[in-house]
Amino acid sequence: MKKIPIIAIIGGAECSREIEKLAYETGEEIAKAGFLLVSGGMSGVMEAACRGAKKHGGVTIGILPGKSKADANPHIDIPIVTAMSHARNAIIVRTADVVIAVDGKYGTLSEISLAKCINKPIIGLKTWDIEGIIKVNTPPEAIKKIKSLLPSIS
Amino acid sequence: MKKIPIIAIIGGAECSREIEKLAYETGEEIAKAGFLLVSGGMSGVMEAACRGAKKHGGVTIGILPGKSKADANPHIDIPIVTAMSHARNAIIVRTADVVIAVDGKYGTLSEISLAKCINKPIIGLKTWDIEGIIKVNTPPEAIKKIKSLLPSIS
Amino acid sequence: MKKIPIIAIIGGAECSREIEKLAYETGEEIAKAGFLLVSGGMSGVMEAACRGAKKHGGVTIGILPGKSKADANPHIDIPIVTAMSHARNAIIVRTADVVIAVDGKYGTLSEISLAKCINKPIIGLKTWDIEGIIKVNTPPEAIKKIKSLLPSIS
Amino acid sequence: MKKIPIIAIIGGAECSREIEKLAYETGEEIAKAGFLLVSGGMSGVMEAACRGAKKHGGVTIGILPGKSKADANPHIDIPIVTAMSHARNAIIVRTADVVIAVDGKYGTLSEISLAKCINKPIIGLKTWDIEGIIKVNTPPEAIKKIKSLLPSIS
Repeated sequence: MKKIPIIAIIGGAECSREIEKLAYETGEEIAKAGFLLVSGGMSGVMEAACRGAKKHGGVTIGILPGKSKADANPHIDIPIVTAMSHARNAIIVRTADVVIAVDGKYGTLSEISLAKCINKPIIGLKTWDIEGIIKVNTPPEAIKKIKSLLPSIS
Repeated sequence: MKKIPIIAIIGGAECSREIEKLAYETGEEIAKAGFLLVSGGMSGVMEAACRGAKKHGGVTIGILPGKSKADANPHIDIPIVTAMSHARNAIIVRTADVVIAVDGKYGTLSEISLAKCINKPIIGLKTWDIEGIIKVNTPPEAIKKIKSLLPSIS
Repeated sequence: MKKIPIIAIIGGAECSREIEKLAYETGEEIAKAGFLLVSGGMSGVMEAACRGAKKHGGVTIGILPGKSKADANPHIDIPIVTAMSHARNAIIVRTADVVIAVDGKYGTLSEISLAKCINKPIIGLKTWDIEGIIKVNTPPEAIKKIKSLLPSIS
Repeated sequence: MKKIPIIAIIGGAECSREIEKLAYETGEEIAKAGFLLVSGGMSGVMEAACRGAKKHGGVTIGILPGKSKADANPHIDIPIVTAMSHARNAIIVRTADVVIAVDGKYGTLSEISLAKCINKPIIGLKTWDIEGIIKVNTPPEAIKKIKSLLPSIS
């Protein structure tokens, strides 16, 4: 399993059906590419992405904000229980090689910002319009972009 | 000292002379109003604000990202040593009753976002243009706004 | 206020009357010596120590585990709100120049251990019998020991 | 992968050959039992345990204290990068269903204590003599004990 790239999907715990579909497809693509998926482990975009990844045999890691692994969405394989509330957002982006932001509100914006602080590449799908995000339009484009970035990541 | 409001000043570790002056004056106003000042405790906006506060006998708290209190700027009275890198940003905004953002880059944006996640009021002085920030033009205006907000904060 | 030594008092959130008295007196001595007092900010040993310090005009810092400064005991001047549960124990000992352990259960033992990990001196008053703790019998002895240690602490 | 029990192995980053062998065998038993192995991800006991687990196709999670996944020992499959120094010890024990302590110094003692704070069962192999640790003499005994405990863990 060693050296498998780890991709974060960040996005809101609540989202529209359209965004849920987008997150699901992004999770599917991550698993199909053979990458590990890390997220905040909760509902909404996080859950849809994990569900998509599990559909294709992917491995899903959830960095949980609360005190119990029972909080994880049902598609998390590896629940990491931080009991640190939003401070765990910093761990999600540190753990990832590349971050994909899908939609999202302020929690997602904090993760985008924290990723920028430590120079992690961020790919954006219908998310905040912040300088430094690599915008793409579809999940396959996101994966293509990740594949072009990975060789330059230690 | 109990129940004294705690105001965070967030902003970059590097800034222009103009911004430094603005941060200094904001620190001055916080001390003159009798509030405690919390910040990330480092250089740039944080240091200028603390210097301004100390000019008027204010009390300055620095929530440091590194492992040693020697990292604090020379105007910090109370260094809190987290050894948690950017995860300490969440502690800064939790500790404050109101947050003032002055200029700033991605670290500041993460703090703005984390403040919004937990419904802390944020006042902005020449900072990111993010929905939910209360924009003001001068430090005295910021203090006036804080005074109007405090009665509704538990 | 700069460069004032910061002394942590660690101990249980629940304790006997006898221990409460010991913690109170230790807080008194810290304030009388002109040191800042940092603790976990909650009840029991922490509250008694803060009450003792405030009796003599000391300044008390509480590194809180929860999400609200309303959790702090009534004798905390400066509540630091971590929302990090027991992970905040590491911040308490990092922030202190010297740690005094008074009684205590497993939370206190975790703080003793974390202090040893980073080579902070620990003085013990009726606490765990762990190698590396400097045992004393009274609060004044603890302060005397701290004064002998401080010159060698950067 | 869902609902697989997660077992933490805690122990020093430095250890004797004898302890390394014990940690290795404990890792082997965890993998053979089909459990996930979580540890601090570094050298010594942690590395030996992971090496043992990988020998039998186990999955190893490392909750790293530093800023880079390059710090992980070579037998970590899933590096979680906290950048939180010893504060990550709290995450290791929260994430585990049962903790096994093998030898260890103060870092291990902090993890034992943090585990007790949140009522996680701790099994001890040649480790600290602290009340509340379930002592066993061999890795297979540790696994047998875990299997008897798991039904009562949610």
